[in-house]
Amino acid sequence: MSRTVFLNGDFVKEEEAKISIFDRGFLFADGVYEVTSVMQGKLLDFDGHMNRLERSLNELDFTYIVDREEMRQIHKKLVKANGIDDGLIYLQISRGAADRSFKYPDESVKPTVVMFTQTRDSMKPADPEKGIRVISVDDLRWGRRDIKSVQLLYPSMAKMAASRAGADDAFLVEDGHVTEGTSNNAFIVTPCGTLVTRQLSADILHGITRAAVLRCAKELQMKIDERPFTIEEAQGAAEAFITSASNYVMPVIEIDGKKINQGQPGPVAIRLRDVYLEESLKTAI
Amino acid sequence: MSRTVFLNGDFVKEEEAKISIFDRGFLFADGVYEVTSVMQGKLLDFDGHMNRLERSLNELDFTYIVDREEMRQIHKKLVKANGIDDGLIYLQISRGAADRSFKYPDESVKPTVVMFTQTRDSMKPADPEKGIRVISVDDLRWGRRDIKSVQLLYPSMAKMAASRAGADDAFLVEDGHVTEGTSNNAFIVTPCGTLVTRQLSADILHGITRAAVLRCAKELQMKIDERPFTIEEAQGAAEAFITSASNYVMPVIEIDGKKINQGQPGPVAIRLRDVYLEESLKTAI
Repeated sequence: MSRTVFLNGDFVKEEEAKISIFDRGFLFADGVYEVTSVMQGKLLDFDGHMNRLERSLNELDFTYIVDREEMRQIHKKLVKANGIDDGLIYLQISRGAADRSFKYPDESVKPTVVMFTQTRDSMKPADPEKGIRVISVDDLRWGRRDIKSVQLLYPSMAKMAASRAGADDAFLVEDGHVTEGTSNNAFIVTPCGTLVTRQLSADILHGITRAAVLRCAKELQMKIDERPFTIEEAQGAAEAFITSASNYVMPVIEIDGKKINQGQPGPVAIRLRDVYLEESLKTAI
Repeated sequence: MSRTVFLNGDFVKEEEAKISIFDRGFLFADGVYEVTSVMQGKLLDFDGHMNRLERSLNELDFTYIVDREEMRQIHKKLVKANGIDDGLIYLQISRGAADRSFKYPDESVKPTVVMFTQTRDSMKPADPEKGIRVISVDDLRWGRRDIKSVQLLYPSMAKMAASRAGADDAFLVEDGHVTEGTSNNAFIVTPCGTLVTRQLSADILHGITRAAVLRCAKELQMKIDERPFTIEEAQGAAEAFITSASNYVMPVIEIDGKKINQGQPGPVAIRLRDVYLEESLKTAI
Protein backbone atom coordinates (compact mmCIF):
# COMPACT_ATOMS: atom_id res chain seq x y z
CA MET A 1 0.00 0.00 0.00
CA SER A 2 1.26 3.42 -0.90
CA ARG A 3 2.09 5.66 2.04
CA THR A 4 0.68 9.10 2.60
CA VAL A 5 3.55 11.54 3.10
CA PHE A 6 3.77 15.24 3.85
CA LEU A 7 5.37 17.71 1.46
CA ASN A 8 5.28 21.48 1.88
CA GLY A 9 1.80 21.72 3.37
CA ASP A 10 0.18 18.88 1.48
CA PHE A 11 -0.54 15.25 2.29
CA VAL A 12 0.19 13.28 -0.88
CA LYS A 13 0.80 9.73 -2.03
CA GLU A 14 4.47 8.82 -1.81
CA GLU A 15 4.75 8.35 -5.58
CA GLU A 16 3.63 11.94 -6.08
CA ALA A 17 5.97 13.45 -3.48
CA LYS A 18 8.54 15.17 -5.67
CA ILE A 19 10.93 18.03 -5.22
CA SER A 20 12.88 20.19 -7.64
CA ILE A 21 16.29 19.02 -8.83
CA PHE A 22 17.41 22.49 -7.65
CA ASP A 23 16.51 21.73 -4.05
CA ARG A 24 19.54 22.52 -1.90
CA GLY A 25 18.95 19.33 0.01
CA PHE A 26 19.80 17.49 -3.21
CA LEU A 27 22.58 19.75 -4.53
CA PHE A 28 24.38 20.77 -1.30
CA ALA A 29 23.14 18.43 1.48
CA ASP A 30 21.83 21.70 2.89
CA GLY A 31 19.18 20.20 5.13
CA VAL A 32 18.53 18.83 8.60
CA TYR A 33 16.36 15.98 9.84
CA GLU A 34 14.80 14.26 12.83
CA VAL A 35 13.52 10.74 13.37
CA THR A 36 10.78 10.37 15.98
CA SER A 37 9.81 6.95 17.25
CA VAL A 38 6.18 5.87 17.24
CA MET A 39 5.14 3.28 19.80
CA GLN A 40 1.57 2.12 20.37
CA GLY A 41 0.64 4.88 17.93
CA LYS A 42 2.24 7.56 20.09
CA LEU A 43 5.22 9.86 19.54
CA LEU A 44 8.20 9.34 21.86
CA ASP A 45 9.93 12.47 23.22
CA PHE A 46 8.42 14.75 20.59
CA ASP A 47 9.60 17.90 22.39
CA GLY A 48 13.15 16.56 22.56
CA HIS A 49 13.18 16.15 18.79
CA MET A 50 11.68 19.58 18.19
CA ASN A 51 14.29 21.14 20.51
CA ARG A 52 17.10 19.53 18.56
CA LEU A 53 15.50 20.43 15.21
CA GLU A 54 15.40 24.08 16.26
CA ARG A 55 19.03 23.89 17.34
CA SER A 56 20.14 22.37 14.02
CA LEU A 57 18.21 24.99 12.03
CA ASN A 58 19.66 27.76 14.16
CA GLU A 59 23.26 26.53 13.79
CA LEU A 60 22.81 26.62 10.01
CA ASP A 61 21.14 30.06 9.94
CA PHE A 62 17.86 28.75 8.59
CA THR A 63 15.16 31.39 8.95
CA TYR A 64 12.44 28.71 9.19
CA ILE A 65 10.35 28.95 12.37
CA VAL A 66 9.17 25.61 13.79
CA ASP A 67 5.49 25.69 14.75
CA ARG A 68 5.39 22.84 17.26
CA GLU A 69 1.64 22.53 17.39
CA GLU A 70 1.44 22.33 13.60
CA MET A 71 4.32 19.83 13.56
CA ARG A 72 2.59 17.72 16.18
CA GLN A 73 -0.62 17.70 14.17
CA ILE A 74 1.18 16.66 10.98
CA HIS A 75 3.01 13.89 12.85
CA LYS A 76 -0.27 12.65 14.32
CA LYS A 77 -2.04 12.81 10.96
CA LEU A 78 0.71 10.75 9.34
CA VAL A 79 0.55 8.18 12.14
CA LYS A 80 -3.19 7.85 11.58
CA ALA A 81 -3.19 7.96 7.78
CA ASN A 82 -0.59 5.21 7.59
CA GLY A 83 -1.81 3.15 10.54
CA ILE A 84 1.56 3.31 12.27
CA ASP A 85 1.41 1.44 15.55
CA ASP A 86 5.11 0.79 15.85
CA GLY A 87 7.58 2.66 13.66
CA LEU A 88 8.89 6.14 13.09
CA ILE A 89 8.34 9.49 11.47
CA TYR A 90 11.13 10.99 9.44
CA LEU A 91 11.19 14.79 9.10
CA GLN A 92 13.53 16.75 6.84
CA ILE A 93 13.83 20.46 6.22
CA SER A 94 16.09 21.68 3.44
CA ARG A 95 16.89 25.27 2.53
CA GLY A 96 14.65 25.01 -0.54
CA ALA A 97 15.07 25.21 -4.30
CA ALA A 98 17.16 27.95 -5.89
CA ASP A 99 19.56 28.27 -8.80
CA ARG A 100 22.80 26.56 -7.80
CA SER A 101 25.14 28.75 -5.76
CA PHE A 102 27.27 28.06 -2.69
CA LYS A 103 25.76 31.17 -1.16
CA TYR A 104 22.45 30.72 0.63
CA PRO A 105 19.48 32.03 -1.38
CA ASP A 106 17.55 35.08 -0.15
CA GLU A 107 14.57 34.72 2.15
CA SER A 108 12.06 34.60 -0.70
CA VAL A 109 13.14 30.97 -1.17
CA LYS A 110 10.99 28.82 1.09
CA PRO A 111 12.45 25.76 2.82
CA THR A 112 11.29 22.31 1.72
CA VAL A 113 9.52 20.38 4.49
CA VAL A 114 9.16 16.62 4.06
CA MET A 115 7.76 14.01 6.43
CA PHE A 116 7.14 10.32 5.95
CA THR A 117 6.55 7.21 8.02
CA GLN A 118 8.24 3.84 8.27
CA THR A 119 6.83 0.81 10.04
CA ARG A 120 9.15 -1.00 12.42
CA ASP A 121 8.83 -4.18 10.37
CA SER A 122 9.94 -2.45 7.17
CA MET A 123 13.10 -1.24 8.94
CA LYS A 124 14.18 -4.80 9.74
CA PRO A 125 15.36 -3.82 13.21
CA ALA A 126 17.92 -5.87 15.09
CA ASP A 127 16.64 -8.27 17.76
CA PRO A 128 17.46 -6.92 21.24
CA GLU A 129 17.48 -10.48 22.56
CA LYS A 130 20.35 -11.29 20.21
CA GLY A 131 22.16 -7.96 20.14
CA ILE A 132 24.39 -6.68 17.36
CA ARG A 133 27.98 -7.08 16.25
CA VAL A 134 30.04 -4.03 15.38
CA ILE A 135 33.35 -3.32 13.71
CA SER A 136 35.47 -0.22 14.18
CA VAL A 137 36.19 2.18 11.32
CA ASP A 138 37.89 5.57 11.17
CA ASP A 139 35.51 8.46 11.76
CA LEU A 140 35.86 10.55 8.61
CA ARG A 141 32.73 12.65 9.02
CA TRP A 142 32.68 16.44 9.09
CA GLY A 143 33.43 18.35 12.28
CA ARG A 144 29.89 19.44 13.19
CA ARG A 145 28.20 16.16 14.07
CA ASP A 146 26.11 17.99 16.66
CA ILE A 147 24.14 19.41 13.73
CA LYS A 148 21.78 16.70 12.50
CA SER A 149 22.42 17.38 8.81
CA VAL A 150 21.70 15.06 5.91
CA GLN A 151 25.43 14.68 5.18
CA LEU A 152 25.09 10.95 5.78
CA LEU A 153 27.24 9.53 3.03
CA TYR A 154 30.03 8.42 5.35
CA PRO A 155 27.75 6.76 7.94
CA SER A 156 26.16 4.98 4.98
CA MET A 157 29.60 3.85 3.74
CA ALA A 158 30.49 2.67 7.25
CA LYS A 159 27.25 0.70 7.54
CA MET A 160 28.05 -1.00 4.23
CA ALA A 161 31.60 -1.78 5.41
CA ALA A 162 30.09 -3.39 8.52
CA SER A 163 27.66 -5.36 6.41
CA ARG A 164 30.44 -6.61 4.14
CA ALA A 165 32.41 -7.69 7.22
CA GLY A 166 29.42 -9.71 8.43
CA ALA A 167 28.62 -7.21 11.20
CA ASP A 168 25.57 -5.05 11.88
CA ASP A 169 27.06 -1.65 12.53
CA ALA A 170 30.27 0.28 13.04
CA PHE A 171 31.80 2.24 15.90
CA LEU A 172 33.51 5.32 14.51
CA VAL A 173 36.97 6.03 15.90
CA GLU A 174 38.79 9.35 15.95
CA ASP A 175 42.14 10.08 17.62
CA GLY A 176 42.03 6.61 19.15
CA HIS A 177 38.62 6.98 20.79
CA VAL A 178 35.11 5.97 19.84
CA THR A 179 32.94 8.94 18.88
CA GLU A 180 29.66 7.08 18.31
CA GLY A 181 27.99 4.52 16.01
CA THR A 182 26.94 5.25 12.41
CA SER A 183 23.49 6.46 13.46
CA ASN A 184 23.49 5.95 17.23
CA ASN A 185 25.38 6.79 20.40
CA ALA A 186 27.77 4.25 21.92
CA PHE A 187 27.85 3.16 25.59
CA ILE A 188 29.88 0.70 27.62
CA VAL A 189 29.52 -0.63 31.15
CA THR A 190 32.91 -0.97 32.86
CA PRO A 191 33.84 -4.09 34.85
CA CYS A 192 33.04 -1.98 37.96
CA GLY A 193 29.56 -1.23 36.66
CA THR A 194 30.04 2.41 35.62
CA LEU A 195 28.10 3.52 32.54
CA VAL A 196 30.43 5.30 30.11
CA THR A 197 29.46 7.31 27.05
CA ARG A 198 31.25 10.12 25.28
CA GLN A 199 30.49 13.62 26.56
CA LEU A 200 28.52 16.03 24.37
CA SER A 201 30.52 18.18 21.93
CA ALA A 202 30.60 18.88 18.20
CA ASP A 203 32.15 15.39 17.83
CA ILE A 204 28.87 13.52 18.31
CA LEU A 205 25.15 13.79 17.78
CA HIS A 206 23.32 14.93 20.86
CA GLY A 207 21.10 11.87 20.93
CA ILE A 208 17.58 12.25 22.28
CA THR A 209 17.59 8.58 23.28
CA ARG A 210 21.09 9.00 24.74
CA ALA A 211 19.78 11.77 27.02
CA ALA A 212 16.69 9.78 28.00
CA VAL A 213 18.74 6.67 28.80
CA LEU A 214 21.13 8.73 30.95
CA ARG A 215 18.10 10.08 32.84
CA CYS A 216 16.91 6.50 33.40
CA ALA A 217 20.38 5.43 34.58
CA LYS A 218 20.43 8.32 37.05
CA GLU A 219 17.06 7.28 38.43
CA LEU A 220 18.42 3.76 38.81
CA GLN A 221 21.32 5.33 40.75
CA MET A 222 23.90 3.97 38.34
CA LYS A 223 27.33 5.58 38.27
CA ILE A 224 27.75 7.56 35.03
CA ASP A 225 30.97 8.80 33.46
CA GLU A 226 30.67 10.92 30.32
CA ARG A 227 34.09 10.57 28.67
CA PRO A 228 35.69 9.05 25.57
CA PHE A 229 36.65 5.37 25.53
CA THR A 230 38.81 3.27 23.23
CA ILE A 231 37.91 0.16 21.26
CA GLU A 232 40.23 -1.79 23.57
CA GLU A 233 38.37 -0.56 26.65
CA ALA A 234 35.04 -1.41 25.01
CA GLN A 235 36.32 -4.90 24.15
CA GLY A 236 37.21 -5.42 27.79
CA ALA A 237 33.95 -3.94 29.11
CA ALA A 238 31.28 -5.86 30.99
CA GLU A 239 28.72 -4.73 28.42
CA ALA A 240 28.30 -2.44 25.43
CA PHE A 241 25.21 -1.04 23.76
CA ILE A 242 23.96 1.64 21.43
CA THR A 243 21.03 4.04 21.69
CA SER A 244 18.96 5.63 18.93
CA ALA A 245 15.37 6.60 18.22
CA SER A 246 14.91 3.58 15.99
CA ASN A 247 16.89 1.04 18.05
CA TYR A 248 16.02 2.32 21.57
CA VAL A 249 18.71 0.49 23.59
CA MET A 250 20.42 -2.26 21.61
CA PRO A 251 23.04 -4.56 23.17
CA VAL A 252 26.38 -4.88 21.37
CA ILE A 253 27.68 -8.44 21.75
CA GLU A 254 30.85 -8.29 19.66
CA ILE A 255 33.38 -5.59 18.73
CA ASP A 256 35.93 -6.31 15.99
CA GLY A 257 35.44 -10.04 16.53
CA LYS A 258 35.90 -9.90 20.31
CA LYS A 259 32.85 -11.12 22.24
CA ILE A 260 31.40 -8.85 24.95
CA ASN A 261 29.67 -10.51 27.92
CA GLN A 262 30.31 -13.93 26.31
CA GLY A 263 28.40 -12.78 23.23
CA GLN A 264 25.15 -12.25 25.16
CA PRO A 265 23.09 -9.10 25.76
CA GLY A 266 23.99 -7.84 29.21
CA PRO A 267 21.66 -7.20 32.15
CA VAL A 268 22.34 -3.43 32.30
CA ALA A 269 21.43 -2.92 28.64
CA ILE A 270 18.29 -5.04 29.01
CA ARG A 271 17.25 -3.21 32.16
CA LEU A 272 17.88 0.23 30.64
CA ARG A 273 15.91 -0.73 27.54
CA ASP A 274 12.93 -1.80 29.64
CA VAL A 275 13.03 1.28 31.84
CA TYR A 276 13.56 3.58 28.83
CA LEU A 277 10.56 2.16 27.00
CA GLU A 278 8.39 2.31 30.12
CA GLU A 279 9.39 5.89 30.93
CA SER A 280 9.10 7.07 27.32
CA LEU A 281 5.59 5.72 26.96
CA LYS A 282 4.51 7.70 30.02
CA THR A 283 5.24 11.00 28.25
CA ALA A 284 4.44 9.83 24.69
CA ILE A 285 1.79 11.89 22.90
CA MET B 1 13.35 31.96 -20.17
CA SER B 2 12.99 28.52 -18.67
CA ARG B 3 16.00 26.26 -19.12
CA THR B 4 15.91 22.83 -20.68
CA VAL B 5 17.49 20.36 -18.28
CA PHE B 6 18.23 16.64 -18.41
CA LEU B 7 16.66 14.18 -15.99
CA ASN B 8 16.97 10.40 -16.27
CA GLY B 9 16.91 10.19 -20.05
CA ASP B 10 14.56 13.08 -20.75
CA PHE B 11 15.04 16.70 -21.71
CA VAL B 12 12.47 18.69 -19.74
CA LYS B 13 11.72 22.26 -18.69
CA GLU B 14 13.42 23.11 -15.42
CA GLU B 15 10.09 23.62 -13.62
CA GLU B 16 9.14 20.03 -14.48
CA ALA B 17 12.45 18.48 -13.39
CA LYS B 18 11.48 16.76 -10.18
CA ILE B 19 12.83 13.87 -8.18
CA SER B 20 11.39 11.70 -5.45
CA ILE B 21 11.70 12.83 -1.82
CA PHE B 22 13.18 9.34 -1.33
CA ASP B 23 16.13 10.09 -3.60
CA ARG B 24 19.32 9.23 -1.71
CA GLY B 25 20.88 12.42 -3.01
CA PHE B 26 18.30 14.28 -0.91
CA LEU B 27 18.18 11.98 2.15
CA PHE B 28 21.85 10.91 2.46
CA ALA B 29 23.91 13.24 0.22
CA ASP B 30 24.62 9.98 -1.58
CA GLY B 31 25.62 11.49 -4.90
CA VAL B 32 28.54 12.85 -6.90
CA TYR B 33 28.82 15.70 -9.36
CA GLU B 34 30.93 17.42 -11.99
CA VAL B 35 30.95 20.95 -13.35
CA THR B 36 32.23 21.32 -16.91
CA SER B 37 33.02 24.76 -18.30
CA VAL B 38 31.55 25.86 -21.59
CA MET B 39 33.51 28.46 -23.57
CA GLN B 40 32.58 29.64 -27.04
CA GLY B 41 29.93 26.93 -26.92
CA LYS B 42 32.55 24.21 -26.35
CA LEU B 43 33.21 21.87 -23.42
CA LEU B 44 36.55 22.35 -21.66
CA ASP B 45 38.46 19.18 -20.67
CA PHE B 46 35.41 16.95 -20.99
CA ASP B 47 37.50 13.78 -20.67
CA GLY B 48 39.12 15.05 -17.48
CA HIS B 49 35.69 15.51 -15.92
CA MET B 50 34.49 12.09 -17.06
CA ASN B 51 37.65 10.49 -15.63
CA ARG B 52 37.05 12.09 -12.25
CA LEU B 53 33.33 11.23 -12.36
CA GLU B 54 34.20 7.58 -12.91
CA ARG B 55 36.67 7.71 -10.03
CA SER B 56 34.10 9.25 -7.66
CA LEU B 57 31.47 6.67 -8.63
CA ASN B 58 33.98 3.87 -8.20
CA GLU B 59 35.12 5.04 -4.74
CA LEU B 60 31.47 4.99 -3.60
CA ASP B 61 30.69 1.57 -5.13
CA PHE B 62 28.15 2.94 -7.58
CA THR B 63 27.35 0.34 -10.21
CA TYR B 64 26.48 3.02 -12.78
CA ILE B 65 28.52 2.80 -15.97
CA VAL B 66 29.39 6.12 -17.61
CA ASP B 67 28.74 6.09 -21.36
CA ARG B 68 31.03 8.93 -22.44
CA GLU B 69 29.64 9.28 -25.93
CA GLU B 70 26.10 9.50 -24.56
CA MET B 71 27.26 11.96 -21.89
CA ARG B 72 28.98 14.08 -24.52
CA GLN B 73 25.83 14.16 -26.64
CA ILE B 74 23.66 15.19 -23.69
CA HIS B 75 26.15 17.92 -22.75
CA LYS B 76 26.18 19.21 -26.33
CA LYS B 77 22.38 19.10 -26.59
CA LEU B 78 22.04 21.12 -23.40
CA VAL B 79 24.58 23.68 -24.67
CA LYS B 80 22.55 24.07 -27.86
CA ALA B 81 19.07 23.99 -26.32
CA ASN B 82 20.00 26.71 -23.83
CA GLY B 83 22.21 28.75 -26.15
CA ILE B 84 25.17 28.53 -23.77
CA ASP B 85 28.12 30.37 -25.24
CA ASP B 86 29.91 30.97 -21.99
CA GLY B 87 28.90 29.10 -18.83
CA LEU B 88 28.87 25.60 -17.44
CA ILE B 89 27.12 22.27 -17.32
CA TYR B 90 26.38 20.77 -13.93
CA LEU B 91 26.04 16.97 -13.77
CA GLN B 92 24.91 15.01 -10.72
CA ILE B 93 24.43 11.29 -10.23
CA SER B 94 22.78 10.07 -7.04
CA ARG B 95 22.24 6.48 -5.95
CA GLY B 96 18.55 6.79 -6.76
CA ALA B 97 15.27 6.61 -4.84
CA ALA B 98 14.64 3.85 -2.30
CA ASP B 99 12.95 3.53 1.06
CA ARG B 100 15.21 5.19 3.62
CA SER B 101 18.00 2.95 4.91
CA PHE B 102 21.68 3.60 5.61
CA LYS B 103 22.42 0.49 3.59
CA TYR B 104 22.72 0.96 -0.17
CA PRO B 105 19.66 -0.30 -2.07
CA ASP B 106 19.97 -3.32 -4.36
CA GLU B 107 20.85 -2.94 -8.01
CA SER B 108 17.23 -2.76 -9.14
CA VAL B 109 17.30 0.85 -7.93
CA LYS B 110 18.49 3.02 -10.78
CA PRO B 111 20.70 6.05 -10.13
CA THR B 112 19.25 9.51 -10.73
CA VAL B 113 21.10 11.44 -13.45
CA VAL B 114 20.59 15.20 -13.59
CA MET B 115 22.22 17.81 -15.81
CA PHE B 116 21.58 21.52 -16.16
CA THR B 117 23.27 24.60 -17.52
CA GLN B 118 24.23 27.96 -16.04
CA THR B 119 25.31 30.98 -18.04
CA ARG B 120 28.44 32.74 -16.87
CA ASP B 121 26.49 35.96 -16.32
CA SER B 122 24.00 34.24 -13.99
CA MET B 123 26.88 32.98 -11.86
CA LYS B 124 28.09 36.54 -11.18
CA PRO B 125 31.74 35.50 -11.52
CA ALA B 126 34.53 37.52 -9.95
CA ASP B 127 36.47 39.88 -12.17
CA PRO B 128 39.98 38.50 -12.83
CA GLU B 129 41.24 42.06 -13.35
CA LYS B 130 40.27 42.86 -9.77
CA GLY B 131 40.90 39.51 -8.08
CA ILE B 132 39.23 38.22 -4.93
CA ARG B 133 39.68 38.61 -1.20
CA VAL B 134 39.69 35.52 1.01
CA ILE B 135 39.49 34.80 4.72
CA SER B 136 40.75 31.66 6.44
CA VAL B 137 38.39 29.28 8.25
CA ASP B 138 38.92 25.86 9.84
CA ASP B 139 38.47 22.99 7.41
CA LEU B 140 35.69 20.92 9.00
CA ARG B 141 34.77 18.87 5.94
CA TRP B 142 34.77 15.08 5.84
CA GLY B 143 37.97 13.11 5.22
CA ARG B 144 37.35 12.08 1.59
CA ARG B 145 37.49 15.36 -0.27
CA ASP B 146 38.99 13.53 -3.24
CA ILE B 147 35.50 12.16 -3.87
CA LYS B 148 33.45 14.90 -5.50
CA SER B 149 30.34 14.25 -3.42
CA VAL B 150 27.41 16.60 -2.87
CA GLN B 151 28.26 16.94 0.84
CA LEU B 152 28.73 20.67 0.31
CA LEU B 153 27.10 22.09 3.40
CA TYR B 154 30.38 23.15 5.01
CA PRO B 155 31.83 24.81 1.88
CA SER B 156 28.50 26.63 1.65
CA MET B 157 28.78 27.73 5.31
CA ALA B 158 32.37 28.87 4.70
CA LYS B 159 31.34 30.87 1.62
CA MET B 160 28.66 32.59 3.72
CA ALA B 161 31.19 33.33 6.48
CA ALA B 162 33.44 34.92 3.85
CA SER B 163 30.55 36.95 2.51
CA ARG B 164 29.61 38.19 5.98
CA ALA B 165 33.25 39.21 6.51
CA GLY B 166 33.15 41.27 3.32
CA ALA B 167 35.33 38.76 1.43
CA ASP B 168 34.68 36.63 -1.65
CA ASP B 169 35.85 33.19 -0.56
CA ALA B 170 37.59 31.23 2.16
CA PHE B 171 40.81 29.23 2.37
CA LEU B 172 40.18 26.13 4.49
CA VAL B 173 42.86 25.38 7.06
CA GLU B 174 43.60 22.03 8.68
CA ASP B 175 46.48 21.27 11.06
CA GLY B 176 47.88 24.72 10.36
CA HIS B 177 47.99 24.36 6.58
CA VAL B 178 45.69 25.43 3.76
CA THR B 179 43.91 22.50 2.15
CA GLU B 180 42.07 24.40 -0.59
CA GLY B 181 39.32 26.98 -1.17
CA THR B 182 35.61 26.30 -0.66
CA SER B 183 35.15 25.12 -4.25
CA ASN B 184 38.58 25.60 -5.77
CA ASN B 185 42.25 24.72 -5.35
CA ALA B 186 44.64 27.23 -3.78
CA PHE B 187 48.03 28.28 -5.18
CA ILE B 188 50.73 30.69 -4.13
CA VAL B 189 53.84 32.00 -5.89
CA THR B 190 56.79 32.28 -3.50
CA PRO B 191 59.02 35.37 -3.45
CA CYS B 192 61.51 33.25 -5.44
CA GLY B 193 58.90 32.54 -8.11
CA THR B 194 58.10 28.91 -7.25
CA LEU B 195 54.49 27.85 -7.80
CA VAL B 196 53.20 26.07 -4.67
CA THR B 197 49.97 24.08 -4.34
CA ARG B 198 49.05 21.27 -2.01
CA GLN B 199 49.88 17.76 -3.22
CA LEU B 200 47.05 15.39 -4.16
CA SER B 201 45.60 13.25 -1.37
CA ALA B 202 42.22 12.57 0.22
CA ASP B 203 42.55 16.04 1.80
CA ILE B 204 41.68 17.95 -1.37
CA LEU B 205 39.67 17.73 -4.53
CA HIS B 206 41.73 16.60 -7.48
CA GLY B 207 40.94 19.67 -9.51
CA ILE B 208 40.73 19.32 -13.27
CA THR B 209 41.68 22.98 -13.66
CA ARG B 210 44.43 22.50 -11.05
CA ALA B 211 45.96 19.75 -13.19
CA ALA B 212 45.62 21.76 -16.41
CA VAL B 213 47.23 24.85 -14.84
CA LEU B 214 50.13 22.73 -13.54
CA ARG B 215 50.62 21.40 -17.10
CA CYS B 216 50.68 24.99 -18.38
CA ALA B 217 53.17 26.00 -15.68
CA LYS B 218 55.41 23.11 -16.66
CA GLU B 219 55.33 24.17 -20.30
CA LEU B 220 56.26 27.67 -19.18
CA GLN B 221 59.19 26.04 -17.33
CA MET B 222 58.07 27.39 -13.99
CA LYS B 223 59.39 25.76 -10.83
CA ILE B 224 56.57 23.79 -9.14
CA ASP B 225 56.43 22.53 -5.57
CA GLU B 226 53.41 20.42 -4.58
CA ARG B 227 53.29 20.76 -0.79
CA PRO B 228 51.13 22.29 1.96
CA PHE B 229 51.52 25.96 2.86
CA THR B 230 50.33 28.06 5.79
CA ILE B 231 48.20 31.19 5.79
CA GLU B 232 51.28 33.10 6.97
CA GLU B 233 53.33 31.87 4.01
CA ALA B 234 50.48 32.77 1.65
CA GLN B 235 50.25 36.25 3.18
CA GLY B 236 53.96 36.73 2.52
CA ALA B 237 53.82 35.27 -1.00
CA ALA B 238 54.48 37.20 -4.19
CA GLU B 239 51.07 36.12 -5.48
CA ALA B 240 48.15 33.88 -4.67
CA PHE B 241 45.35 32.53 -6.83
CA ILE B 242 42.67 29.86 -7.03
CA THR B 243 41.70 27.50 -9.83
CA SER B 244 38.31 25.96 -10.62
CA ALA B 245 36.19 25.03 -13.61
CA SER B 246 33.99 28.08 -13.10
CA ASN B 247 36.73 30.58 -12.12
CA TYR B 248 39.55 29.28 -14.34
CA VAL B 249 42.53 31.06 -12.70
CA MET B 250 41.44 33.83 -10.32
CA PRO B 251 43.97 36.08 -8.55
CA VAL B 252 43.69 36.38 -4.76
CA ILE B 253 44.61 39.92 -3.71
CA GLU B 254 43.98 39.75 0.03
CA ILE B 255 44.12 37.03 2.72
CA ASP B 256 42.66 37.75 6.17
CA GLY B 257 43.01 41.47 5.53
CA LYS B 258 46.66 41.29 4.40
CA LYS B 259 47.19 42.52 0.84
CA ILE B 260 49.04 40.25 -1.60
CA ASN B 261 51.09 41.90 -4.37
CA GLN B 262 49.90 45.32 -3.10
CA GLY B 263 46.32 44.21 -3.61
CA GLN B 264 46.73 43.71 -7.37
CA PRO B 265 46.39 40.58 -9.52
CA GLY B 266 49.91 39.28 -10.10
CA PRO B 267 51.62 38.63 -13.44
CA VAL B 268 52.01 34.86 -12.90
CA ALA B 269 48.28 34.39 -12.26
CA ILE B 270 47.38 36.55 -15.25
CA ARG B 271 49.82 34.70 -17.50
CA LEU B 272 48.63 31.26 -16.32
CA ARG B 273 45.01 32.27 -16.85
CA ASP B 274 45.73 33.36 -20.42
CA VAL B 275 47.74 30.24 -21.25
CA TYR B 276 45.18 27.96 -19.55
CA LEU B 277 42.28 29.45 -21.55
CA GLU B 278 44.27 29.30 -24.79
CA GLU B 279 45.35 25.70 -24.24
CA SER B 280 41.94 24.55 -23.03
CA LEU B 281 40.19 25.95 -26.08
CA LYS B 282 42.53 23.95 -28.33
CA THR B 283 41.16 20.67 -26.98
CA ALA B 284 37.60 21.87 -26.26
CA ILE B 285 34.85 19.87 -27.94
